[in-house]
Amino acid sequence: MAILVTGAAGFIGCNMVQRLLASNHRIFGIDNLSNGSRKNIAHSLQDARFVFVEADLSDLSAFMPVAQQFHSTDPITEVWHLAANSDIPAGIDDAGVDLRDTFMTTFNTLEVMKRLKIKQLAFASTSAVYGDHENVRLHEDIGPLLPISNYGAMKLASEALISAAAEAWLERAWIFRFPNVIGVPATHGALLDFIRKLRQTPDNLNVLGNGTQQKGYLHVSELIDAMLYIREFAEERLAYYNIGSDDEGVTVRFMAEQVVAAAAPAAKISFGEGNKGWVGDVPRFVYSIEKLRALGWQPKIGSADAIKLAIHEIIDQEMHQ
Amino acid sequence: MAILVTGAAGFIGCNMVQRLLASNHRIFGIDNLSNGSRKNIAHSLQDARFVFVEADLSDLSAFMPVAQQFHSTDPITEVWHLAANSDIPAGIDDAGVDLRDTFMTTFNTLEVMKRLKIKQLAFASTSAVYGDHENVRLHEDIGPLLPISNYGAMKLASEALISAAAEAWLERAWIFRFPNVIGVPATHGALLDFIRKLRQTPDNLNVLGNGTQQKGYLHVSELIDAMLYIREFAEERLAYYNIGSDDEGVTVRFMAEQVVAAAAPAAKISFGEGNKGWVGDVPRFVYSIEKLRALGWQPKIGSADAIKLAIHEIIDQEMHQ
Repeated sequence: MAILVTGAAGFIGCNMVQRLLASNHRIFGIDNLSNGSRKNIAHSLQDARFVFVEADLSDLSAFMPVAQQFHSTDPITEVWHLAANSDIPAGIDDAGVDLRDTFMTTFNTLEVMKRLKIKQLAFASTSAVYGDHENVRLHEDIGPLLPISNYGAMKLASEALISAAAEAWLERAWIFRFPNVIGVPATHGALLDFIRKLRQTPDNLNVLGNGTQQKGYLHVSELIDAMLYIREFAEERLAYYNIGSDDEGVTVRFMAEQVVAAAAPAAKISFGEGNKGWVGDVPRFVYSIEKLRALGWQPKIGSADAIKLAIHEIIDQEMHQ
Repeated sequence: MAILVTGAAGFIGCNMVQRLLASNHRIFGIDNLSNGSRKNIAHSLQDARFVFVEADLSDLSAFMPVAQQFHSTDPITEVWHLAANSDIPAGIDDAGVDLRDTFMTTFNTLEVMKRLKIKQLAFASTSAVYGDHENVRLHEDIGPLLPISNYGAMKLASEALISAAAEAWLERAWIFRFPNVIGVPATHGALLDFIRKLRQTPDNLNVLGNGTQQKGYLHVSELIDAMLYIREFAEERLAYYNIGSDDEGVTVRFMAEQVVAAAAPAAKISFGEGNKGWVGDVPRFVYSIEKLRALGWQPKIGSADAIKLAIHEIIDQEMHQ
C-alpha cells in the first residue's frame, strides 16, 4: 500500500515526503519541476521506499501512465495533492497559469483516482478561497467566497470539484486551507525576497507597500503536523479545516526588521506606499482556527517565532547555494 | 455598440436575445448547438440586428476569431454569458462535460473580453453553487460553498474567476444565481419528461423518487425580467443575486398531478422511493430572495402558477413538433 504525493519536489511536498517516509510509508512522487527541484528531494531519494517521476499533472496523457505504473507496483490507497502554481502574481497576469497548474492538476488527479479506484484524497487549499473580508474573522463556513486572485479562484474551483466527487464516488477527502507558510526550501515569499535583496545591497532594504500589511504565518513543520493530525482525527467524509497560527499575525514591517537584525543589522529599511503589495493580495486577514483547535491541535509557536526560525533557516539555505 | 450573448440558441439565451432585440440592441450570438438549436432563434434571425455564428466557446481558437469579427463590425460593450452544459446528470458521469461546457466557456469568455477590452459581464450562475444545506435558507452570503454536482462546482469555479477578474480588470459583473427555470423552448427537466412519458403511455406516469422533493420554480419570462432589473439597478462592481420564486416551492407530486390534469386526466401516477432523483441533486432547498427584493424586484407569479403556465406552453410545444 502506497501514497501518491503530487508536487512532491515543491516546498510543502518535499517536507511532506520526508515526514511520510519517517512514518514508514511507501511514497510515489510526481512533480513537473516548474517550481520544485530535484535538489529538494535529494535526501528522500536515498530511501528506496520513495520513487519519483517528473511529469506534468496538467496533461492527463502524461500523468495517467505514470500513475498506472505506480499503482501496478504497489496499490495506491491515498493521494496527497500538493501540486499547484505558487506564484500568485504570475497567475494574475496570465489566468492560464493557475488554470493549468492549480486547477487542471486537481481535475486530472481526480480523473486518475476515479479510474484507478483510489478513494482517499488530501488536498492543499488556501485562505485565498475566502477573498477579502476585511476585518471579519475567517472561519471555515463564512461566505461569500469571492477570491480576488486566479490562484484563490482555482483553489476554490478545486475544492468544489472535490466536494462534488465526495458526493459521487470519493470516500474521504481532507481539505487543508493553508495560511502563509514559511520555512525551507524557500522558493518565493517576502522573507526570501528581503534576504536576497540584502545580500545584493547590504546597506538598504526596499519594501513594497507601507509595511502595515499584517498576516499570520505558520512554520512548514507545524503545517505538516496539522495536516497529519487532521488526516488522522477528522471524522467527516469531507473534512475542511483552516490551518494557521493562533495569533493576530505580524506586519511586513516586523518581518523586514527581523531579517535586517539577522542578516544585515546596519541596513536602513525604506517603505513604499499603500498596504497591498500587488493586485490579488489580501492586505490583512484574521484566520479562525477554532475548528482545528476543537479537533485537538494548535500550533506550538506563534507567527513571530515562526518568522524568526524561518529567517535563520533561509539565511542558511542562501549561504549554502 | 453591441451585446454578445453566449449560449444564444439555448433555453435562456434565445429568450434573452428576443428581449434584448425588443429593447433595440444590436446582438451577436454564439452557441455550439449542443443543447440549443437554430429553431430556437429562427424568429430572432429575421431581425437584421441579430447575427448568429455557431462556434464552440470551449475552444479559444474557434471563439476568438468570431468575437474579433463581431467586435470589428460593432464594438461589443457587454457580454451575457449564458452558455453552459444544462444536463447535470451527464456531468456527474463524466466530469469532462462541465469542465468543457460550463467552466472552459467561462474561462474563454473572460480571455476574449480581456483581450478585446470588454469590461462588462452578465453571468448565469445557479443555486447549485450552494450545495446541500438542508433546511437552511440560502441567502447570497451563506457558507460553506460545497457543491454536490460537477455542474455546481464548475459554476462556482466560474464565479470565482469572475470575482478575480473584477479585482484585476473587469469593471462590472452581474452574477445571477438561477433557481429552477421553466418555460419554452423546453429541452429537459421534469415537466417535459412527464409530458413526453404521458404521450407514450397516456394511462400511467412513473415518477422517479417519492414525489416529496420540493423546489421553487420561476418562469423564464420572470427570470429575464429579474436579470435585466439587476443589470439596470444593482450598483456593486461585482453584483451577485439569487433569482427565484418568493415561496416555499412545489413538490414533484404537485408537478406530476398538474401535468396529468392538463395532458391525460385519466392517468395513474406511480412514485418510486427516496427523495433524491439522482446523485448530485439537492433534494430540498429554500431560496432567499431578500437581497433582490430589497433592490426592488419580486416575481409576479408563484411557483405553482409558473408550473401551470409552463405545462401549457410545453404541451403546445410538443404538439407542434
